[in-house]
Amino acid sequence: MAEYALFGMGESGNAYKAALMLNLCGLDWEPIFVDFFNGEGRGDLFRDNINELGEIPVLDHSGKKLSQSGVILHYLVEQTGRFGAASEDEAREIWRWILFDNHKFTSYLATLRFMVGLQKTGETPVTDFLRNRVLGAFGLVEKHLSGRDFIVGDRPTIADLSMVGYLYFPEETGIERSRFPNMQAWTRRIAGLPGWAHPYDLMRRGFPGA
Amino acid sequence: MAEYALFGMGESGNAYKAALMLNLCGLDWEPIFVDFFNGEGRGDLFRDNINELGEIPVLDHSGKKLSQSGVILHYLVEQTGRFGAASEDEAREIWRWILFDNHKFTSYLATLRFMVGLQKTGETPVTDFLRNRVLGAFGLVEKHLSGRDFIVGDRPTIADLSMVGYLYFPEETGIERSRFPNMQAWTRRIAGLPGWAHPYDLMRRGFPGA
Repeated sequence: MAEYALFGMGESGNAYKAALMLNLCGLDWEPIFVDFFNGEGRGDLFRDNINELGEIPVLDHSGKKLSQSGVILHYLVEQTGRFGAASEDEAREIWRWILFDNHKFTSYLATLRFMVGLQKTGETPVTDFLRNRVLGAFGLVEKHLSGRDFIVGDRPTIADLSMVGYLYFPEETGIERSRFPNMQAWTRRIAGLPGWAHPYDLMRRGFPGA
Repeated sequence: MAEYALFGMGESGNAYKAALMLNLCGLDWEPIFVDFFNGEGRGDLFRDNINELGEIPVLDHSGKKLSQSGVILHYLVEQTGRFGAASEDEAREIWRWILFDNHKFTSYLATLRFMVGLQKTGETPVTDFLRNRVLGAFGLVEKHLSGRDFIVGDRPTIADLSMVGYLYFPEETGIERSRFPNMQAWTRRIAGLPGWAHPYDLMRRGFPGA
C-alpha cells in the first residue's frame, strides 16, 4: 500500500490539483477511484466514512483524512517543503489566489465544462452565466500573468497547481483559449515541470463512455 | 485615523465577515465605503491601488493591504489570538470550512441574493440553478450542525464568522429558512456574541435606493 492514497477520478480537476502535487513531489501515492458520476460521493458510505461534504478529493495519509484541495496542497507543502511560501506575506498571497481559484476561477469553470463538455447540455442561460463568470476570472489572471511566469513570486507554488486544475482538459467549454496567451504560456510552463502528467493519465476516468 | 480600515459596503456579506471579526475583537477600525454597485471596484483607481482582483473586502493595517475574507480573518486571528484554532488539525478544519464557504456556500448564496433580493430579476433558469446549489450547501451545514453549537470545535471560530456572512440580510432569496432549524439556532448563537452587529449597522449601504 502506498504512503498516500487519493480518492478521486480523472475528470475531477479538483482531485487533479492534489494528484499533480503528489506526482511533482515524487511521493509514493495511489489513486482510489470514486465513481462520482454514479453518485458514490453522495452515498452514505462515502459521506459517513470519507467526507461528510460528499466531495473529492480526499487524501488519506496513514489514516488521517483531509479534504478540500486547498487544505491538501498546504498539507503536502508541510510534508515535503516543496511549492510553498518563502515568507508570511507570500503565504497570504498563496492563500489569496487559492481562495480566488475556489471561488471564481475553478468553481465556475468546472461546472461550465461539466455541462457543456460532458453533459452536452448545449447553450442555456446557465452556461451563458457561467461562461461570463469564467471569462471575467480569465481576464484577471491573464492580466496578472503579464510579465510574470508564475502566480506568486518567481517560481511555481501550490497557487499555480490549484489554478491549473481544470486547464488541461480537452472537453469543450466554448471559450477560445487563444484569447489568453499569457495563460497559455503559463499552463505550458507548468506542464514542463518534471513529474507533470495529464489528469487522464493519473486517475481513472468515470464519465459514462469515457 | 483608526488602526484598521476596511474597504467595503453594507450589502457585501464578504466585507461583513471581516467587519464582524473586527467588531467582535473590539479592534479600532473604520469602514471605507466602496461604491461597488456603481462600478468603483471595477475601476482602474481601485484595481491599481487597492485590489487588482476588483473585489471587496480589503483590509488596510498600517499600509499593508490584504484581500480575500479568508486571508483577512486568519490575519486578524494572528493579530488578536481570538477565534482561531487550538491545534494543527483544527487549523485545517477551519480552512476546510472556509474553502467550502467560499466555493459552495457564500458564493452561490451571495449571487442568488443579489439577483433575487436586490436586482429583483424574478425567477430565471440562473436563479433556479443557484438556489439548488444553495439548498445543497444548506443541507450539508444543517446536518453538520446537528448536535453541535459551532462549525469547528465547541466555540466560535472564524469558520463560523465566514459562513454567517450572508445569513443576516433581510432580502428575499426564495429559501424558507425554517427548513433549516439548526442553522437558525446557530446564526442566533453568533448574533448573541458580545460585539455582534448587523451588517447594515456596520457599513454604509450602496445599493441604489437603499
